[in-house]
Amino acid sequence: MIMLDEQAIEDIAIGAALLGSGGGGDPYVGKLMALASIRECGPVPLIRAEEVPDEALVVPSAMMGAPLVLIEKLPNGQEFERAFRALGKYMGQEVYATMPLEAGGINSMVPIAVAARLGLPLIDSDGMGRAFPELQMVTFHLHGISAAPMAMADEKGNHVLMDAISNHWAENIARSVTVTMGAGAMIGLYAMTGAQLKQAGIHGIMSFSRKIGEIIRESRKTETSPTRKIAEFTGGYLLFQGKITDVARGMEGGFNRGVVRLEGIGNGKGSSLEVEFQNENLLARIDGEIAASTPDLICLLDLETAEPFTTESLRYGRRAELLVLPCHEMWRTEQGLKVVGPRYFGYDCDYVPIEELAKRRGR
Amino acid sequence: MIMLDEQAIEDIAIGAALLGSGGGGDPYVGKLMALASIRECGPVPLIRAEEVPDEALVVPSAMMGAPLVLIEKLPNGQEFERAFRALGKYMGQEVYATMPLEAGGINSMVPIAVAARLGLPLIDSDGMGRAFPELQMVTFHLHGISAAPMAMADEKGNHVLMDAISNHWAENIARSVTVTMGAGAMIGLYAMTGAQLKQAGIHGIMSFSRKIGEIIRESRKTETSPTRKIAEFTGGYLLFQGKITDVARGMEGGFNRGVVRLEGIGNGKGSSLEVEFQNENLLARIDGEIAASTPDLICLLDLETAEPFTTESLRYGRRAELLVLPCHEMWRTEQGLKVVGPRYFGYDCDYVPIEELAKRRGR
Repeated sequence: MIMLDEQAIEDIAIGAALLGSGGGGDPYVGKLMALASIRECGPVPLIRAEEVPDEALVVPSAMMGAPLVLIEKLPNGQEFERAFRALGKYMGQEVYATMPLEAGGINSMVPIAVAARLGLPLIDSDGMGRAFPELQMVTFHLHGISAAPMAMADEKGNHVLMDAISNHWAENIARSVTVTMGAGAMIGLYAMTGAQLKQAGIHGIMSFSRKIGEIIRESRKTETSPTRKIAEFTGGYLLFQGKITDVARGMEGGFNRGVVRLEGIGNGKGSSLEVEFQNENLLARIDGEIAASTPDLICLLDLETAEPFTTESLRYGRRAELLVLPCHEMWRTEQGLKVVGPRYFGYDCDYVPIEELAKRRGR
Repeated sequence: MIMLDEQAIEDIAIGAALLGSGGGGDPYVGKLMALASIRECGPVPLIRAEEVPDEALVVPSAMMGAPLVLIEKLPNGQEFERAFRALGKYMGQEVYATMPLEAGGINSMVPIAVAARLGLPLIDSDGMGRAFPELQMVTFHLHGISAAPMAMADEKGNHVLMDAISNHWAENIARSVTVTMGAGAMIGLYAMTGAQLKQAGIHGIMSFSRKIGEIIRESRKTETSPTRKIAEFTGGYLLFQGKITDVARGMEGGFNRGVVRLEGIGNGKGSSLEVEFQNENLLARIDGEIAASTPDLICLLDLETAEPFTTESLRYGRRAELLVLPCHEMWRTEQGLKVVGPRYFGYDCDYVPIEELAKRRGR
């Protein structure tokens, strides 16, 4: 067990934003929320999944909604206390610990704030190993764990406890509540036992995020971009360097949707890159050819500092590098690809692992 | 205390549909639901508000959504049991009795089904004395009683327990959940004490509905239309007889909205009537002049049988009589008119009581 202090939180926020693959929210906003909570309530203990008793009740926590909106609606974790306790009461068991649902600038921070406010430990695991836009897109779902009963709260003080017959129904109902709450809500869901978590979770994600954040922070002193170092550390592929020439986006059903286009520079010179996103980056095409697709992690990093772009921070003229990381093995199964593969998102192509695509491109 | 048997239920369904002022749902569907419940679980005791202990917990129950959809989604009261019990548990007190929120073909029946399934008595009171389209349009709201915590359930088995900071927020969140649940949901809300009910409720509504239903049923034997008898019994005004020449309607945000036009016959000959509705009939114009407006009860009855039309049962060619009943005094206060007066619904006119309008028309 280690205690998450301010430095740890800053590093995790940046590293998790990278793993967020364009989604998961602004790490600056997330950081402020988590820091405010630990300053008020003290540091949060980070524990490993194997330290959780098999029969203990674990409830992941997150923000649901369009990250763009979250910037305007900074939650502080406090409004969530009542909803979280109501969920434990409904389950008839005290909540032992919380944890992130996904990795992201906001959604790796929310559980820290929740843990601090509720005096719970935080577990070093999540259910995606990245960020995804819908509630059923978690490895817990692949293991038959139910999203409901689910707690929801907004920053005004409204809260909802929902029980649904399936994870798709949970997603549908929660999405409409989120939109009504102002396109952003705090949620607690996928309540499970320690035994279930050990089997269904993606482990070590906070520590992994923290290490990535450290590499980025350290590089600020040396003034050399750490993208190569990050690629080495994560086992990822650097595929393209370019300048953002166009960002088209809109809000649709509580999601940020759009496409960003880059003109090649450096090793990308003469080529062009197009990345489609729905909260997260889902498909990358270089010169019209698929270079990477969901569920692999498609990350756009600032070319100079390696700081990750979220889809809402993409701006014309910024210079970026495309880093693609292999996703967790659980997503590469037939069942996993049904839930998060390119076809689910409406793309007419099969998933090809980044290792294979990179080999084909000869890199 | 009396027991509601099958005959009582049939009469209440018809009488309540009349008080529903075009809204509150199809009495035939409502009746089937209530009858199925008492056949399975036994008859339901009807008690008066003054029989409820001051500290007892009372929870009204209803269907929320567009009545048009309810016809396709017949609930049986069963799916609601779990949600209703969760609400009691959340309140930390057992539910003593249920009651209707409004008078209507469906919404006077739902509480009978709920009472039967849960083995609770039904209270002979409601919160409208008629039907209205939104959750805050109840006399409980005028008395500062909170709609939340609120239970919601659909026929599939999804359910929601919601706590909101205001009745308008409860309406907003519940409306979006209802739309997602398929435009119809069972709800339990405005949990209150017996003491609050005695002060804030509209009393005797089930007995009143039953008597109206009896008058309509009895008239079937005599083959004379009982509209005059109903007007006398209810203190209402018969303003127009006509034939439906046009019904324009649509679904909007989970509501049935539209306008029905009638060409005069009998005492209406040479004139025309136009009634605007939003689930309920809200404004009646005879020859372009306002003849009645919300919150008074604007009821269209079958000219021959006096059976009430709901807004979804209006059909071209049917002959109807316009009956307008004075609303409860609580709606005629400044505060009441703010919540349910014509301006709330977007009509640019002040409320004039039907007694006054009828006098002006010289009837």
